[in-house]
Amino acid sequence: MRDVIVFSGSAHRSLARQICEHLGVPLSGVDIARFSNDCLQAQLLVNCRQRDVFIVQPLVPPTQEHLMELLMMIDAARGASAAHVTAVIPHYSYARSDKKDASRISLGGRLVADMLVTAGADRVITMALHAPQVHGFFSVPVDHLTAIGALASHFRDHGRDLTDHVVVSPDLGNAKTATLFARLLGLPVAAGNKQRMADDRVVIDSIVGDVENKRAIVLDDEIATGGSMIELLDKLGEAGCPGADVACTHGLFAGPAVERLNAHSLITEVVSTDTVPAPVGLHKHVVVSVAELFAEAIARIHVGESVSSLFDGVDPRHAPPQLRLPF
Amino acid sequence: MRDVIVFSGSAHRSLARQICEHLGVPLSGVDIARFSNDCLQAQLLVNCRQRDVFIVQPLVPPTQEHLMELLMMIDAARGASAAHVTAVIPHYSYARSDKKDASRISLGGRLVADMLVTAGADRVITMALHAPQVHGFFSVPVDHLTAIGALASHFRDHGRDLTDHVVVSPDLGNAKTATLFARLLGLPVAAGNKQRMADDRVVIDSIVGDVENKRAIVLDDEIATGGSMIELLDKLGEAGCPGADVACTHGLFAGPAVERLNAHSLITEVVSTDTVPAPVGLHKHVVVSVAELFAEAIARIHVGESVSSLFDGVDPRHAPPQLRLPF
Amino acid sequence: MRDVIVFSGSAHRSLARQICEHLGVPLSGVDIARFSNDCLQAQLLVNCRQRDVFIVQPLVPPTQEHLMELLMMIDAARGASAAHVTAVIPHYSYARSDKKDASRISLGGRLVADMLVTAGADRVITMALHAPQVHGFFSVPVDHLTAIGALASHFRDHGRDLTDHVVVSPDLGNAKTATLFARLLGLPVAAGNKQRMADDRVVIDSIVGDVENKRAIVLDDEIATGGSMIELLDKLGEAGCPGADVACTHGLFAGPAVERLNAHSLITEVVSTDTVPAPVGLHKHVVVSVAELFAEAIARIHVGESVSSLFDGVDPRHAPPQLRLPF
Amino acid sequence: MRDVIVFSGSAHRSLARQICEHLGVPLSGVDIARFSNDCLQAQLLVNCRQRDVFIVQPLVPPTQEHLMELLMMIDAARGASAAHVTAVIPHYSYARSDKKDASRISLGGRLVADMLVTAGADRVITMALHAPQVHGFFSVPVDHLTAIGALASHFRDHGRDLTDHVVVSPDLGNAKTATLFARLLGLPVAAGNKQRMADDRVVIDSIVGDVENKRAIVLDDEIATGGSMIELLDKLGEAGCPGADVACTHGLFAGPAVERLNAHSLITEVVSTDTVPAPVGLHKHVVVSVAELFAEAIARIHVGESVSSLFDGVDPRHAPPQLRLPF
Amino acid sequence: MRDVIVFSGSAHRSLARQICEHLGVPLSGVDIARFSNDCLQAQLLVNCRQRDVFIVQPLVPPTQEHLMELLMMIDAARGASAAHVTAVIPHYSYARSDKKDASRISLGGRLVADMLVTAGADRVITMALHAPQVHGFFSVPVDHLTAIGALASHFRDHGRDLTDHVVVSPDLGNAKTATLFARLLGLPVAAGNKQRMADDRVVIDSIVGDVENKRAIVLDDEIATGGSMIELLDKLGEAGCPGADVACTHGLFAGPAVERLNAHSLITEVVSTDTVPAPVGLHKHVVVSVAELFAEAIARIHVGESVSSLFDGVDPRHAPPQLRLPF
Amino acid sequence: MRDVIVFSGSAHRSLARQICEHLGVPLSGVDIARFSNDCLQAQLLVNCRQRDVFIVQPLVPPTQEHLMELLMMIDAARGASAAHVTAVIPHYSYARSDKKDASRISLGGRLVADMLVTAGADRVITMALHAPQVHGFFSVPVDHLTAIGALASHFRDHGRDLTDHVVVSPDLGNAKTATLFARLLGLPVAAGNKQRMADDRVVIDSIVGDVENKRAIVLDDEIATGGSMIELLDKLGEAGCPGADVACTHGLFAGPAVERLNAHSLITEVVSTDTVPAPVGLHKHVVVSVAELFAEAIARIHVGESVSSLFDGVDPRHAPPQLRLPF
Repeated sequence: MRDVIVFSGSAHRSLARQICEHLGVPLSGVDIARFSNDCLQAQLLVNCRQRDVFIVQPLVPPTQEHLMELLMMIDAARGASAAHVTAVIPHYSYARSDKKDASRISLGGRLVADMLVTAGADRVITMALHAPQVHGFFSVPVDHLTAIGALASHFRDHGRDLTDHVVVSPDLGNAKTATLFARLLGLPVAAGNKQRMADDRVVIDSIVGDVENKRAIVLDDEIATGGSMIELLDKLGEAGCPGADVACTHGLFAGPAVERLNAHSLITEVVSTDTVPAPVGLHKHVVVSVAELFAEAIARIHVGESVSSLFDGVDPRHAPPQLRLPF
Repeated sequence: MRDVIVFSGSAHRSLARQICEHLGVPLSGVDIARFSNDCLQAQLLVNCRQRDVFIVQPLVPPTQEHLMELLMMIDAARGASAAHVTAVIPHYSYARSDKKDASRISLGGRLVADMLVTAGADRVITMALHAPQVHGFFSVPVDHLTAIGALASHFRDHGRDLTDHVVVSPDLGNAKTATLFARLLGLPVAAGNKQRMADDRVVIDSIVGDVENKRAIVLDDEIATGGSMIELLDKLGEAGCPGADVACTHGLFAGPAVERLNAHSLITEVVSTDTVPAPVGLHKHVVVSVAELFAEAIARIHVGESVSSLFDGVDPRHAPPQLRLPF
Repeated sequence: MRDVIVFSGSAHRSLARQICEHLGVPLSGVDIARFSNDCLQAQLLVNCRQRDVFIVQPLVPPTQEHLMELLMMIDAARGASAAHVTAVIPHYSYARSDKKDASRISLGGRLVADMLVTAGADRVITMALHAPQVHGFFSVPVDHLTAIGALASHFRDHGRDLTDHVVVSPDLGNAKTATLFARLLGLPVAAGNKQRMADDRVVIDSIVGDVENKRAIVLDDEIATGGSMIELLDKLGEAGCPGADVACTHGLFAGPAVERLNAHSLITEVVSTDTVPAPVGLHKHVVVSVAELFAEAIARIHVGESVSSLFDGVDPRHAPPQLRLPF
Repeated sequence: MRDVIVFSGSAHRSLARQICEHLGVPLSGVDIARFSNDCLQAQLLVNCRQRDVFIVQPLVPPTQEHLMELLMMIDAARGASAAHVTAVIPHYSYARSDKKDASRISLGGRLVADMLVTAGADRVITMALHAPQVHGFFSVPVDHLTAIGALASHFRDHGRDLTDHVVVSPDLGNAKTATLFARLLGLPVAAGNKQRMADDRVVIDSIVGDVENKRAIVLDDEIATGGSMIELLDKLGEAGCPGADVACTHGLFAGPAVERLNAHSLITEVVSTDTVPAPVGLHKHVVVSVAELFAEAIARIHVGESVSSLFDGVDPRHAPPQLRLPF
Repeated sequence: MRDVIVFSGSAHRSLARQICEHLGVPLSGVDIARFSNDCLQAQLLVNCRQRDVFIVQPLVPPTQEHLMELLMMIDAARGASAAHVTAVIPHYSYARSDKKDASRISLGGRLVADMLVTAGADRVITMALHAPQVHGFFSVPVDHLTAIGALASHFRDHGRDLTDHVVVSPDLGNAKTATLFARLLGLPVAAGNKQRMADDRVVIDSIVGDVENKRAIVLDDEIATGGSMIELLDKLGEAGCPGADVACTHGLFAGPAVERLNAHSLITEVVSTDTVPAPVGLHKHVVVSVAELFAEAIARIHVGESVSSLFDGVDPRHAPPQLRLPF
Repeated sequence: MRDVIVFSGSAHRSLARQICEHLGVPLSGVDIARFSNDCLQAQLLVNCRQRDVFIVQPLVPPTQEHLMELLMMIDAARGASAAHVTAVIPHYSYARSDKKDASRISLGGRLVADMLVTAGADRVITMALHAPQVHGFFSVPVDHLTAIGALASHFRDHGRDLTDHVVVSPDLGNAKTATLFARLLGLPVAAGNKQRMADDRVVIDSIVGDVENKRAIVLDDEIATGGSMIELLDKLGEAGCPGADVACTHGLFAGPAVERLNAHSLITEVVSTDTVPAPVGLHKHVVVSVAELFAEAIARIHVGESVSSLFDGVDPRHAPPQLRLPF
């Protein structure tokens, strides 16, 4: 197999450019045309023949447009005799449609996975899938990265005093990642306790763990409208927490999120990665880039090194050997 | 197999409703949700189990949204154990992406066909594909309908005097349909002669056939921005044509089309079918409905009658036996 | 399509017989041969041609033997021109292998799903999958049943006084089903709070919710070795709970489970369904049969009625309309 | 991947040998056996393991025999662990079956494409498909070559005086290739105007463009029985054209073609390429070889260079950048 | 599913007509066109929509032509929305290519099976496959019929005196069918003993079993050139056998077979079925028709009755319950 | 492609270790876990990315466990982005299920082949398939090795005097391999003549060929319970054979085989290869290793050399050019 070629759709070109800089390769051009009937067409502007092609495109709004762009670039790469086509999807938003929780409902997470394979994807690289089971929706190999180490570095490595801090998970039921994150920072962990009020409403009715007089670092995988986060922050305030940093992998900040977060008095900093484009007007927003992580994964895939070892061993506090639990 | 169930996405519900009226069945409900991350989800609200399911959705702007809705409804129907799932796509706009006329280009017509099959479509009903070869892009049976008979009826059956009329095809190279149309009306045929001016520009530089002092009925399969049509009408005027009706199957009327057509002095009437939603503000616009044609095709498919015979034999002027030409 | 034909492998013939009794059809014979090289061979003893074939086989120990039997019966039915082949897998134990929680690990839940489809399964009926996402591992329709209603009936319908009872979930993070169960019984809910002690050990370190002087009904989807259950019961005792009933869908009771449960002083009753064969020697064990539920699902599938409605509407306390939550 | 290995069926070994000479590799042996029941069997006589295998076979009469040979050689190469199997089909004759122009008709162009992929073809190289849409019938990459440049060189590079010449297309509707060809030669273009006489008969009833006192170079993609060509030449004579050269990519010259062309007084030269074996007894026949073009394409594919650039840039008159036209 | 529709290619229309007569349905028309480039095209002349379509075509010389016809008819039926397409292949001659007995050889038996499925065959009915393992080459259900009962009836039911007769198998190694046949006739069995003379030559060097002064009924599955049969008859003569009848399922009688058999003094009668067209000029040839057997199989398939029971039980001497042997 | 990586399941690690020694690579580790519900899980402990992975696992008892292990290792390797995954199955025991010799029976040989491909196997290496047709059950390339040469070397190369020896095949009908073996040793061949006693019983009723006062070398592909072998030896004794060596490729020695063989007075030596683990307690047992043969095949596959040449040409007595016989 020959050179690495990286293409980007229109969803997040700046991330693609940064990945290419880390890789030391140019970002290859794509011409995406829209015809008068609103149909799209993609043309790859660089020879793909027998190349190892990577196409960067997170599924962010307008999601359907970006998905179709991605499918067309994959199709064009396959038709142009690429040796391998890897879809690099930093945010696979359709992972949220992962279960049939009502009758006769579409299962978007699986459907989109099948569409990517139909278009010609040989492999997928993604980050922080909403549920780990979504990995099993793909019939091709998936490299599933995590930003936990990068986010932990942000808090640990900038001379910050983490005394009297506590890591808080919004949902006690999904506190596994927060627990790992807390261990990387050497901090205790607390969690919001969600309660179903009615069939269609969930509220956080209490905080499990001690947060009184401790600064919180709230960690979630994704912030969309920010509703749950605000609710959690209110409860933290009621429980005596004097201030909080908010951290997440996928910072979508959709709808009223920016306004809500800007308005909340408890927040000191909002940290997210660049798997999705940065929001406009969000105060105290800090972006922790994962471009180098994606570049490193691409480089390892290309030369045939292990990607899992990216997260193993180097720094024991970063990503301790992830043991399988017996069941 | 059991009852016919018809669903509609949001692209063109009024057409779906009319089809259902002709079939004598209710239009079954669909709940299409859009989440805060712009992902879609479809829920079919009527039992599909072992039913013969038809999903009506032309691929009109916003095309990617409507395509994704269609794929999700198909996926939901298959997952709900439908006996057969038929995608009824009155306007398959991606048929325009039917050839690789540049290097490393996506082939949307084939890609979307494969995606429909991946989602679970067992059959497709469509009308007036841009090129007849697109039929071969599908790996499932396709019922390919034509509106030529319906459009001809419009001109023939309303007491109109067709003396001194001529059917005009915008493109001499694709005049086959216009020739059939002319025969149905007992009229002569003329055509615009397209000339390639430069690598990226095509103009109509002359009219082949006699149009002087004859009223033209210009027939095209689709009108998008209307540019070619206006150019043709100008040439017709120069050639002594005193007035023209414009007819097409797919009346998209995108961008400047409405303004252009409204402004052209030669036009008496603009006729299109309802494969796509009607434009706003187009003067002298007449819609010839093909809802009954689609309903009849669905009914015949369901009971196992021939669809091709829909277009054969009843009225010899309408659809003469379409002979295969030797090659 | 013609008659319903039901076959059973050797995993759980008594369940298959009960399902057939409810359906009013005979259990059709299968001859499973084992050759001297330990290879298996299945022969279906009843004509399957154009029949609606259902094959009942939970994946219980010896799991690989039972899986292979199931695959061979499916293969034989397909080869014998069955119209539809439905794998009825009351306990899909491979659902536990649902995520890649270590490098280069097999994903049994997806692999076995693909094997079933390769062998020729057109549809799957199962109950209480370990995670709802496992539904998405199948490329064929899945009817996913629940025993919650049947288990709730057991506690509600036998004249039992439920005053001062509380439903307890072993894991706060997976308390959704327990919450629904509690609502069906009109009871409050509590949960064990799991804490990761080390990388490879999880313990329940506290009970969230009030259990003091309340009798517990502990609900889990599956009891295997019973370790977590014993730990939870100990914590309940420490928290002042005077006694407990234990309930689960899949009562495997593997290894030391029977001994452990028999020995625990707090337990009054152990309730499980018959998705798997009953254990030997378990005191106070009560089996709630789901044979009728499976029979009803098969009957509805065969005549094309909705299966989801099995769980809707009849008794509002049983299975309230399960609303999709916005995300 | 390792060496290039080239095999040839029995359809056109001399072309395969020439391709090999240009590539500097030997033509590897194939043993094609025919058994007493008329079944065929192919044995490849050279190790294919991990090789880049190319199998040369145009689909010329006896077409079914040659197709089956090709499928069997592909099957044998795949079974022998070839790294890539490329079907080199200089003339894909089944491309003429590209649309469903009658009810319940087979679609040979798609069916044969699917059969090639089923047998194990990973890629196809072909030339001058009857319609560009046929590209989309293949689910594997297709390299679609053109002989237009080679044919133009023939007329331009042999000291021939092209003054007062005109390029003529037999069909105004398919004049795109002729227009490109005319531009390469710096000549004007004219075209026959086909008219449908009856349902089953098409005649050329006039010539569009000025041909009086100009020598014609008539260009078609394929000459089969030569009927249309003779008709066109007659019309050219009537229009004052004093003489004509005839050129085509695929010179089948089937049935009465040789006799007809030999007998026509207007013809000076008949030029065709060697995509198919040369006819016997055709006077004034000149063969322009495309063996080097195929060899160059194979070489570029093997080393991973762009094939499209074969036709770009070297000589601007040869193959000007082929722009996509907006639609 | 609706009516049975039967089509026939050009390989053996008289058999198809007889099958239809037994079924009481008309033989539906097919129009098979051959174009000037030798490509074929099939058009089915009767509506197939939701019908149970059977296409009769043995693979006899010209084998490739007949195979392609069959594939095209299957393709046309699938494209015309047939409910099920069954390829009825009375003689599947490619079954002889059933093993890789040399390096890099095509495996025609499997390749053609895959091509039939690719074209759209849902099921296959065939008779007397060369090796029973070929059944496993198909990924769709196969109904594998036998003519042994019909052939035995011929010898038993015509008042013939079978005293002092012996059934002879040409090959001791494949004597299983002959043994069954002998049991149906109540006769002893003998066999030729093949010896490999050199790497490429096999001769029959002796007769195992007593044939002296007994009339032989020699049974083979297929007679092609008749070479082995003549050799066997010579040995039988040498061993004192005074006369012989020759019987086979597939009577191809290719090349010198007719002349050889006519010339052999020992032969009294040559019996074959009509799975293939009858030879010209073969003396003492008797045809035992299997049309009714195929018709009965089609009828049972259509109404969903067991086909295997066709060969079970009615007359215990005809087809005794075929037990699986332990291995 | 990069390094060769070899894994082994638990079926026969010592063979895998020997293969690795011959290859000069380490045997890479696999962690196979069994959970409390008896489900298996495989984890490959060495990076597979872009590697050429070989997984060694004969299908020996407990066959289903070993098959599932193999499938899971293949699945894990594919999911870990292996370049090629080759299943090395020295004994493919499911090859015995190779035909539908009863109604509605599973076809294990084909089913397991399909399962291996579904799991992700790109190629299979095996030895001495029960019937050569089983090769055609696989849709991926199969390298089918033979131990005949290795077994012949054993008898020829140890200074043994082969005067007055004869090779004996248990079944005259499958004597092809024994004939080849005899030629390698320069010995005559004899065979047991099997006679069907009743529908379910086969006995050897005579010996064809001269064995009186000759020592026999009896060759079979597999010895399971040894029943046929003992029967043959008895007949050999009756026919005056003074002693016998027994040889086979797959020495399963299941059930009473060890006891039977130990007890038989005629036997001097029992020779088998190590495709399966050695039996316990079998006297006079000699193992001829085929580890080097498998290692050599793996090495050739990896570097792209012919495997068939492994068995050609070196020693003409070993593996004479295997000519195809005309049919």
